[in-house]
Amino acid sequence: MVKEIPRATAKRLPIYHRYLRYLYNAGKTRISSTELSDAVKVDSATIRRDFSYFGALGKRGYGYDVEYLLQFFGKTLNQDRLTTTALIGVGSLGNALLNYNFRKSNNVRIGAGFDINPDIIGTVHSGIPIYSIDELEEQLEMQAIEVAILTVPQEYADGIMERLIAAGIKGVLNFTPLRFEVPDTVRVQNVDLTNELQTLIYFINQEDIADQLSRD
Amino acid sequence: MVKEIPRATAKRLPIYHRYLRYLYNAGKTRISSTELSDAVKVDSATIRRDFSYFGALGKRGYGYDVEYLLQFFGKTLNQDRLTTTALIGVGSLGNALLNYNFRKSNNVRIGAGFDINPDIIGTVHSGIPIYSIDELEEQLEMQAIEVAILTVPQEYADGIMERLIAAGIKGVLNFTPLRFEVPDTVRVQNVDLTNELQTLIYFINQEDIADQLSRD
Repeated sequence: MVKEIPRATAKRLPIYHRYLRYLYNAGKTRISSTELSDAVKVDSATIRRDFSYFGALGKRGYGYDVEYLLQFFGKTLNQDRLTTTALIGVGSLGNALLNYNFRKSNNVRIGAGFDINPDIIGTVHSGIPIYSIDELEEQLEMQAIEVAILTVPQEYADGIMERLIAAGIKGVLNFTPLRFEVPDTVRVQNVDLTNELQTLIYFINQEDIADQLSRD
Repeated sequence: MVKEIPRATAKRLPIYHRYLRYLYNAGKTRISSTELSDAVKVDSATIRRDFSYFGALGKRGYGYDVEYLLQFFGKTLNQDRLTTTALIGVGSLGNALLNYNFRKSNNVRIGAGFDINPDIIGTVHSGIPIYSIDELEEQLEMQAIEVAILTVPQEYADGIMERLIAAGIKGVLNFTPLRFEVPDTVRVQNVDLTNELQTLIYFINQEDIADQLSRD
Protein backbone atom coordinates (compact mmCIF):
# COMPACT_ATOMS: atom_id res chain seq x y z
CA MET A 1 0.00 0.00 0.00
CA VAL A 2 1.14 3.48 -0.79
CA LYS A 3 0.34 5.76 2.12
CA GLU A 4 -0.08 9.40 1.25
CA ILE A 5 2.51 11.48 3.05
CA PRO A 6 1.77 14.96 4.38
CA ARG A 7 1.99 17.76 1.83
CA ALA A 8 4.57 19.60 3.95
CA THR A 9 6.80 16.52 3.85
CA ALA A 10 6.33 16.10 0.10
CA LYS A 11 7.38 19.72 -0.40
CA ARG A 12 10.62 19.12 1.42
CA LEU A 13 11.60 16.02 -0.59
CA PRO A 14 12.91 17.96 -3.62
CA ILE A 15 14.94 20.14 -1.24
CA TYR A 16 16.51 17.09 0.39
CA HIS A 17 17.09 15.54 -3.00
CA ARG A 18 18.77 18.62 -4.43
CA TYR A 19 21.15 18.89 -1.49
CA LEU A 20 21.95 15.18 -1.52
CA ARG A 21 22.87 15.40 -5.20
CA TYR A 22 25.16 18.29 -4.35
CA LEU A 23 26.80 16.25 -1.55
CA TYR A 24 27.13 13.22 -3.79
CA ASN A 25 28.79 15.27 -6.52
CA ALA A 26 31.14 16.71 -3.90
CA GLY A 27 32.22 13.16 -2.99
CA LYS A 28 30.57 13.05 0.44
CA THR A 29 29.45 9.54 1.44
CA ARG A 30 27.48 10.14 4.64
CA ILE A 31 25.71 12.91 6.49
CA SER A 32 24.11 13.33 9.91
CA SER A 33 20.61 14.69 10.31
CA THR A 34 22.17 17.70 12.11
CA GLU A 35 24.42 18.51 9.13
CA LEU A 36 21.52 18.04 6.75
CA SER A 37 19.43 20.25 9.01
CA ASP A 38 22.00 23.05 8.90
CA ALA A 39 22.28 22.86 5.14
CA VAL A 40 18.60 22.79 4.20
CA LYS A 41 17.36 24.91 7.14
CA VAL A 42 14.85 22.34 8.37
CA ASP A 43 15.11 21.30 12.00
CA SER A 44 16.52 17.82 12.50
CA ALA A 45 13.43 16.48 14.31
CA THR A 46 11.38 17.35 11.23
CA ILE A 47 13.95 15.69 8.97
CA ARG A 48 13.84 12.51 11.03
CA ARG A 49 10.02 12.54 11.01
CA ASP A 50 9.95 13.15 7.25
CA PHE A 51 12.36 10.28 6.66
CA SER A 52 10.36 8.00 8.94
CA TYR A 53 7.46 8.07 6.46
CA PHE A 54 9.71 6.13 4.14
CA GLY A 55 11.01 3.64 6.69
CA ALA A 56 14.15 3.86 8.84
CA LEU A 57 16.80 5.21 6.52
CA GLY A 58 19.52 6.22 8.98
CA LYS A 59 21.66 4.50 11.58
CA ARG A 60 22.31 5.99 15.01
CA GLY A 61 25.90 7.25 15.32
CA TYR A 62 26.50 6.83 11.60
CA GLY A 63 23.97 9.11 10.02
CA TYR A 64 22.64 8.63 6.53
CA ASP A 65 24.33 7.09 3.53
CA VAL A 66 24.34 9.82 0.87
CA GLU A 67 24.26 7.55 -2.19
CA TYR A 68 21.50 5.38 -0.76
CA LEU A 69 19.39 8.40 0.23
CA LEU A 70 19.96 10.02 -3.15
CA GLN A 71 18.82 6.93 -5.01
CA PHE A 72 15.93 6.47 -2.65
CA PHE A 73 14.61 10.03 -2.97
CA GLY A 74 15.37 10.10 -6.68
CA LYS A 75 13.16 7.05 -7.11
CA THR A 76 10.46 8.43 -4.81
CA LEU A 77 10.45 11.71 -6.68
CA ASN A 78 10.67 9.95 -10.01
CA GLN A 79 13.77 11.98 -10.82
CA ASP A 80 14.77 9.42 -13.42
CA ARG A 81 11.70 10.16 -15.48
CA LEU A 82 11.40 13.48 -17.24
CA THR A 83 7.96 15.04 -16.91
CA THR A 84 7.09 17.40 -19.74
CA THR A 85 4.52 20.06 -18.94
CA ALA A 86 2.44 22.49 -21.00
CA LEU A 87 2.40 26.20 -20.24
CA ILE A 88 -1.00 27.72 -20.91
CA GLY A 89 -0.81 31.50 -21.28
CA VAL A 90 2.42 33.06 -22.54
CA GLY A 91 2.05 36.53 -21.02
CA SER A 92 4.71 38.10 -18.86
CA LEU A 93 4.55 35.48 -16.10
CA GLY A 94 4.35 32.71 -18.70
CA ASN A 95 7.38 34.12 -20.46
CA ALA A 96 9.32 34.30 -17.21
CA LEU A 97 8.48 30.63 -16.55
CA LEU A 98 9.58 29.66 -20.06
CA ASN A 99 12.85 31.46 -19.55
CA TYR A 100 13.31 29.90 -16.12
CA ASN A 101 12.05 26.47 -17.25
CA PHE A 102 12.80 24.77 -13.93
CA ARG A 103 16.50 24.62 -14.70
CA LYS A 104 17.46 23.61 -11.18
CA SER A 105 15.59 20.38 -11.77
CA ASN A 106 16.56 17.57 -14.10
CA ASN A 107 13.17 15.93 -14.21
CA VAL A 108 10.64 18.62 -15.15
CA ARG A 109 10.51 20.97 -18.08
CA ILE A 110 8.01 22.94 -20.09
CA GLY A 111 7.71 21.31 -23.49
CA ALA A 112 5.03 23.43 -25.13
CA GLY A 113 3.42 26.83 -24.70
CA PHE A 114 -0.13 27.78 -25.69
CA ASP A 115 -1.61 31.22 -26.28
CA ILE A 116 -4.23 33.10 -28.29
CA ASN A 117 -1.89 35.90 -29.42
CA PRO A 118 -1.31 35.46 -33.20
CA ASP A 119 1.99 37.37 -32.92
CA ILE A 120 3.63 34.61 -30.90
CA ILE A 121 1.80 31.48 -32.15
CA GLY A 122 4.21 29.47 -34.27
CA THR A 123 7.28 31.10 -32.74
CA VAL A 124 9.80 29.60 -30.36
CA HIS A 125 10.44 31.24 -26.95
CA SER A 126 13.44 30.17 -24.85
CA GLY A 127 13.59 27.08 -27.04
CA ILE A 128 9.93 26.15 -26.52
CA PRO A 129 7.38 26.20 -29.37
CA ILE A 130 4.23 28.25 -28.84
CA TYR A 131 1.03 26.73 -30.21
CA SER A 132 -2.43 28.16 -30.70
CA ILE A 133 -4.78 27.34 -27.84
CA ASP A 134 -6.96 25.75 -30.57
CA GLU A 135 -4.37 22.96 -30.77
CA LEU A 136 -4.40 22.31 -27.02
CA GLU A 137 -6.11 18.91 -26.96
CA GLU A 138 -4.26 17.65 -30.02
CA GLN A 139 -0.82 18.63 -28.73
CA LEU A 140 -1.41 17.33 -25.19
CA GLU A 141 -2.28 13.97 -26.64
CA MET A 142 0.48 13.90 -29.23
CA GLN A 143 3.15 14.92 -26.70
CA ALA A 144 1.66 12.77 -23.90
CA ILE A 145 1.57 15.79 -21.58
CA GLU A 146 -0.27 15.18 -18.31
CA VAL A 147 0.68 18.30 -16.36
CA ALA A 148 -0.21 21.90 -17.19
CA ILE A 149 0.90 25.25 -15.80
CA LEU A 150 -1.94 27.74 -15.86
CA THR A 151 -0.91 31.38 -16.34
CA VAL A 152 -3.87 32.70 -18.32
CA PRO A 153 -5.85 35.82 -17.33
CA GLN A 154 -8.49 35.02 -14.74
CA GLU A 155 -11.42 35.37 -17.16
CA TYR A 156 -10.13 32.51 -19.34
CA ALA A 157 -9.17 30.21 -16.50
CA ASP A 158 -12.47 28.35 -16.01
CA GLY A 159 -12.88 27.55 -19.68
CA ILE A 160 -9.30 26.33 -20.03
CA MET A 161 -9.58 24.22 -16.90
CA GLU A 162 -12.67 22.49 -18.31
CA ARG A 163 -10.81 21.71 -21.51
CA LEU A 164 -7.79 20.40 -19.58
CA ILE A 165 -9.99 18.11 -17.49
CA ALA A 166 -11.82 16.84 -20.59
CA ALA A 167 -8.42 16.20 -22.21
CA GLY A 168 -7.45 13.96 -19.27
CA ILE A 169 -4.91 16.21 -17.56
CA LYS A 170 -3.61 14.82 -14.24
CA GLY A 171 -2.09 17.87 -12.60
CA VAL A 172 -2.34 21.64 -12.86
CA LEU A 173 0.00 24.21 -11.32
CA ASN A 174 -2.42 27.10 -10.99
CA PHE A 175 -1.08 30.66 -10.95
CA THR A 176 -4.53 32.25 -11.36
CA PRO A 177 -6.41 33.49 -8.29
CA LEU A 178 -9.28 31.06 -9.02
CA ARG A 179 -9.82 27.95 -6.91
CA PHE A 180 -11.16 25.07 -8.94
CA GLU A 181 -13.53 22.24 -8.22
CA VAL A 182 -11.99 19.27 -10.01
CA PRO A 183 -12.60 15.51 -10.25
CA ASP A 184 -10.55 13.17 -8.04
CA THR A 185 -8.39 12.26 -11.02
CA VAL A 186 -6.97 15.78 -11.21
CA ARG A 187 -4.69 17.43 -8.70
CA VAL A 188 -4.36 21.20 -8.55
CA GLN A 189 -1.46 22.95 -6.84
CA ASN A 190 -2.20 26.64 -6.30
CA VAL A 191 0.59 29.21 -6.36
CA ASP A 192 -0.65 32.53 -5.07
CA LEU A 193 2.14 35.10 -5.10
CA THR A 194 0.00 37.86 -3.57
CA ASN A 195 -0.85 35.49 -0.77
CA GLU A 196 2.83 34.67 -0.16
CA LEU A 197 3.63 38.37 0.12
CA GLN A 198 0.62 39.11 2.34
CA THR A 199 1.50 36.23 4.64
CA LEU A 200 5.02 37.61 5.01
CA ILE A 201 3.68 41.07 5.79
CA TYR A 202 1.14 39.64 8.23
CA PHE A 203 3.92 37.98 10.25
CA ILE A 204 6.09 41.10 10.17
CA ASN A 205 3.19 43.18 11.46
CA GLN A 206 2.46 40.68 14.21
CA GLU A 207 6.09 40.92 15.29
CA ASP A 208 5.84 44.70 15.31
CA ILE A 209 2.75 44.51 17.53
CA ALA A 210 4.46 41.99 19.83
CA ASP A 211 7.48 44.32 20.07
CA GLN A 212 5.27 47.26 20.96
CA LEU A 213 3.44 45.24 23.61
CA SER A 214 6.66 43.95 25.14
CA ARG A 215 7.95 47.52 25.36
CA ASP A 216 4.81 48.65 27.21
CA MET B 1 -0.17 39.14 24.14
CA VAL B 2 -0.14 38.36 20.45
CA LYS B 3 -0.09 34.63 19.90
CA GLU B 4 1.49 33.51 16.67
CA ILE B 5 -1.04 31.66 14.55
CA PRO B 6 -0.07 28.69 12.36
CA ARG B 7 1.46 29.57 9.01
CA ALA B 8 -1.22 27.56 7.18
CA THR B 9 -3.91 29.69 8.85
CA ALA B 10 -2.07 32.92 8.05
CA LYS B 11 -1.89 31.90 4.40
CA ARG B 12 -5.66 31.46 4.27
CA LEU B 13 -6.46 34.88 5.77
CA PRO B 14 -5.90 36.84 2.54
CA ILE B 15 -8.13 34.31 0.73
CA TYR B 16 -10.93 34.81 3.26
CA HIS B 17 -10.44 38.54 3.13
CA ARG B 18 -10.58 38.70 -0.66
CA TYR B 19 -13.80 36.72 -0.79
CA LEU B 20 -15.40 38.71 2.01
CA ARG B 21 -14.66 41.94 0.15
CA TYR B 22 -16.31 40.43 -2.91
CA LEU B 23 -19.40 39.46 -0.83
CA TYR B 24 -19.53 42.89 0.79
CA ASN B 25 -19.37 44.62 -2.59
CA ALA B 26 -22.17 42.34 -3.80
CA GLY B 27 -24.33 43.52 -0.90
CA LYS B 28 -24.31 40.27 1.07
CA THR B 29 -24.61 40.80 4.84
CA ARG B 30 -24.01 37.33 6.25
CA ILE B 31 -22.53 34.00 5.28
CA SER B 32 -22.41 30.52 6.79
CA SER B 33 -19.15 28.63 7.17
CA THR B 34 -20.50 26.10 4.66
CA GLU B 35 -21.07 28.78 2.01
CA LEU B 36 -17.67 30.28 2.72
CA SER B 37 -16.20 26.80 2.50
CA ASP B 38 -17.73 26.18 -0.94
CA ALA B 39 -16.51 29.52 -2.23
CA VAL B 40 -12.91 29.40 -1.04
CA LYS B 41 -12.48 25.60 -1.27
CA VAL B 42 -11.38 25.19 2.34
CA ASP B 43 -13.35 22.68 4.41
CA SER B 44 -15.64 24.28 6.96
CA ALA B 45 -13.99 22.61 9.98
CA THR B 46 -10.72 24.26 8.96
CA ILE B 47 -12.48 27.61 8.53
CA ARG B 48 -13.99 27.36 12.00
CA ARG B 49 -10.63 26.39 13.48
CA ASP B 50 -8.88 29.25 11.66
CA PHE B 51 -11.48 31.72 12.91
CA SER B 52 -11.20 30.36 16.44
CA TYR B 53 -7.62 31.67 16.65
CA PHE B 54 -9.14 35.13 16.59
CA GLY B 55 -11.93 34.47 19.06
CA ALA B 56 -15.48 33.33 18.34
CA LEU B 57 -16.58 35.37 15.37
CA GLY B 58 -19.71 33.50 14.28
CA LYS B 59 -23.08 32.67 15.81
CA ARG B 60 -24.67 29.24 15.49
CA GLY B 61 -27.65 29.29 13.10
CA TYR B 62 -26.79 32.77 11.90
CA GLY B 63 -23.34 32.38 10.43
CA TYR B 64 -20.89 35.20 10.13
CA ASP B 65 -21.54 38.90 9.69
CA VAL B 66 -19.81 39.86 6.44
CA GLU B 67 -19.03 43.46 7.29
CA TYR B 68 -17.72 42.61 10.74
CA LEU B 69 -15.53 39.81 9.39
CA LEU B 70 -14.28 42.01 6.58
CA GLN B 71 -13.27 44.76 8.96
CA PHE B 72 -11.78 42.26 11.36
CA PHE B 73 -9.62 40.49 8.77
CA GLY B 74 -8.77 43.77 7.09
CA LYS B 75 -7.39 45.02 10.38
CA THR B 76 -5.62 41.75 11.12
CA LEU B 77 -4.06 41.76 7.69
CA ASN B 78 -3.34 45.45 7.88
CA GLN B 79 -5.26 45.94 4.65
CA ASP B 80 -5.73 49.59 5.50
CA ARG B 81 -2.03 50.24 5.36
CA LEU B 82 -0.24 50.05 2.03
CA THR B 83 3.05 48.15 2.21
CA THR B 84 5.53 49.20 -0.43
CA THR B 85 8.13 46.63 -1.37
CA ALA B 86 11.38 46.69 -3.32
CA LEU B 87 12.04 44.27 -6.15
CA ILE B 88 15.69 43.27 -6.34
CA GLY B 89 16.62 41.84 -9.73
CA VAL B 90 14.65 42.94 -12.79
CA GLY B 91 15.23 39.92 -15.03
CA SER B 92 12.41 38.00 -16.64
CA LEU B 93 10.78 36.89 -13.38
CA GLY B 94 11.32 40.36 -11.89
CA ASN B 95 9.70 41.91 -14.93
CA ALA B 96 6.73 39.58 -14.67
CA LEU B 97 6.29 40.56 -11.02
CA LEU B 98 6.50 44.27 -11.89
CA ASN B 99 3.85 43.76 -14.53
CA TYR B 100 1.69 41.73 -12.17
CA ASN B 101 2.40 44.02 -9.18
CA PHE B 102 -0.01 42.22 -6.86
CA ARG B 103 -3.01 43.86 -8.47
CA LYS B 104 -5.51 41.61 -6.74
CA SER B 105 -4.43 43.18 -3.49
CA ASN B 106 -5.04 46.71 -2.33
CA ASN B 107 -2.39 46.72 0.37
CA VAL B 108 0.86 45.62 -1.23
CA ARG B 109 2.73 46.92 -4.21
CA ILE B 110 6.23 47.09 -5.60
CA GLY B 111 7.44 50.68 -5.34
CA ALA B 112 10.98 50.37 -6.64
CA GLY B 113 13.09 47.98 -8.71
CA PHE B 114 16.86 47.48 -8.45
CA ASP B 115 19.24 45.98 -10.96
CA ILE B 116 22.83 46.11 -12.23
CA ASN B 117 21.90 46.32 -15.92
CA PRO B 118 22.79 49.84 -17.16
CA ASP B 119 20.24 49.51 -19.99
CA ILE B 120 17.31 49.53 -17.57
CA ILE B 121 18.65 51.63 -14.66
CA GLY B 122 16.88 54.98 -14.69
CA THR B 123 13.97 53.67 -16.74
CA VAL B 124 10.41 52.99 -15.63
CA HIS B 125 8.89 49.51 -16.04
CA SER B 126 5.15 48.98 -15.58
CA GLY B 127 5.11 52.34 -13.81
CA ILE B 128 7.90 51.45 -11.38
CA PRO B 129 11.30 53.20 -11.43
CA ILE B 130 14.39 50.97 -11.71
CA TYR B 131 17.39 52.08 -9.65
CA SER B 132 20.99 50.96 -9.66
CA ILE B 133 21.71 48.37 -7.00
CA ASP B 134 24.32 50.87 -5.75
CA GLU B 135 21.43 53.01 -4.52
CA LEU B 136 19.80 50.14 -2.61
CA GLU B 137 20.46 51.30 0.97
CA GLU B 138 19.73 54.95 0.19
CA GLN B 139 16.42 54.24 -1.55
CA LEU B 140 15.20 51.73 1.05
CA GLU B 141 15.74 54.34 3.73
CA MET B 142 14.31 57.24 1.73
CA GLN B 143 11.20 55.30 0.72
CA ALA B 144 10.87 53.59 4.14
CA ILE B 145 10.74 50.17 2.47
CA GLU B 146 10.91 47.24 4.89
CA VAL B 147 10.05 44.35 2.59
CA ALA B 148 12.06 43.11 -0.39
CA ILE B 149 11.36 40.62 -3.16
CA LEU B 150 14.51 38.78 -4.15
CA THR B 151 14.69 37.71 -7.80
CA VAL B 152 18.42 38.01 -8.45
CA PRO B 153 20.53 35.20 -9.93
CA GLN B 154 21.63 32.73 -7.27
CA GLU B 155 25.29 33.87 -7.27
CA TYR B 156 24.32 37.39 -6.15
CA ALA B 157 21.76 36.34 -3.58
CA ASP B 158 24.01 35.98 -0.53
CA GLY B 159 25.64 39.36 -1.02
CA ILE B 160 22.32 41.13 -1.54
CA MET B 161 20.78 39.42 1.48
CA GLU B 162 23.67 40.66 3.66
CA ARG B 163 23.10 44.21 2.43
CA LEU B 164 19.35 43.95 3.03
CA ILE B 165 19.88 42.72 6.59
CA ALA B 166 22.43 45.49 7.27
CA ALA B 167 19.91 48.00 5.87
CA GLY B 168 17.34 46.83 8.43
CA ILE B 169 14.96 44.96 6.15
CA LYS B 170 12.14 43.14 8.00
CA GLY B 171 10.90 40.69 5.40
CA VAL B 172 12.15 39.05 2.22
CA LEU B 173 10.10 37.12 -0.31
CA ASN B 174 12.82 34.86 -1.67
CA PHE B 175 12.51 33.46 -5.20
CA THR B 176 16.10 32.20 -5.31
CA PRO B 177 16.85 28.55 -4.50
CA LEU B 178 19.08 29.61 -1.58
CA ARG B 179 17.95 29.15 2.02
CA PHE B 180 19.22 31.92 4.26
CA GLU B 181 20.33 32.07 7.84
CA VAL B 182 18.95 35.39 9.09
CA PRO B 183 18.66 37.22 12.42
CA ASP B 184 15.39 36.97 14.37
CA THR B 185 14.44 40.46 13.21
CA VAL B 186 14.13 39.29 9.61
CA ARG B 187 11.52 36.95 8.21
CA VAL B 188 12.10 35.12 4.94
CA GLN B 189 9.30 33.55 2.92
CA ASN B 190 10.65 31.16 0.30
CA VAL B 191 8.84 30.68 -3.00
CA ASP B 192 10.26 27.72 -4.87
CA LEU B 193 8.45 27.21 -8.17
CA THR B 194 10.41 24.09 -9.09
CA ASN B 195 9.47 22.65 -5.75
CA GLU B 196 5.76 23.42 -6.31
CA LEU B 197 5.85 21.62 -9.64
CA GLN B 198 7.82 18.66 -8.28
CA THR B 199 5.41 18.31 -5.37
CA LEU B 200 2.49 18.21 -7.80
CA ILE B 201 4.23 15.56 -9.91
CA TYR B 202 5.15 13.56 -6.82
CA PHE B 203 1.48 13.33 -5.82
CA ILE B 204 0.37 12.45 -9.34
CA ASN B 205 2.93 9.65 -9.48
CA GLN B 206 1.86 8.35 -6.07
CA GLU B 207 -1.72 8.20 -7.34
CA ASP B 208 -0.56 6.32 -10.43
CA ILE B 209 1.25 3.79 -8.23
CA ALA B 210 -1.82 3.45 -5.96
CA ASP B 211 -3.99 2.87 -9.06
CA GLN B 212 -1.68 0.18 -10.32
CA LEU B 213 -1.62 -1.52 -6.95
CA SER B 214 -5.38 -1.45 -6.62
CA ARG B 215 -5.71 -3.00 -10.06
CA ASP B 216 -3.35 -5.88 -9.13
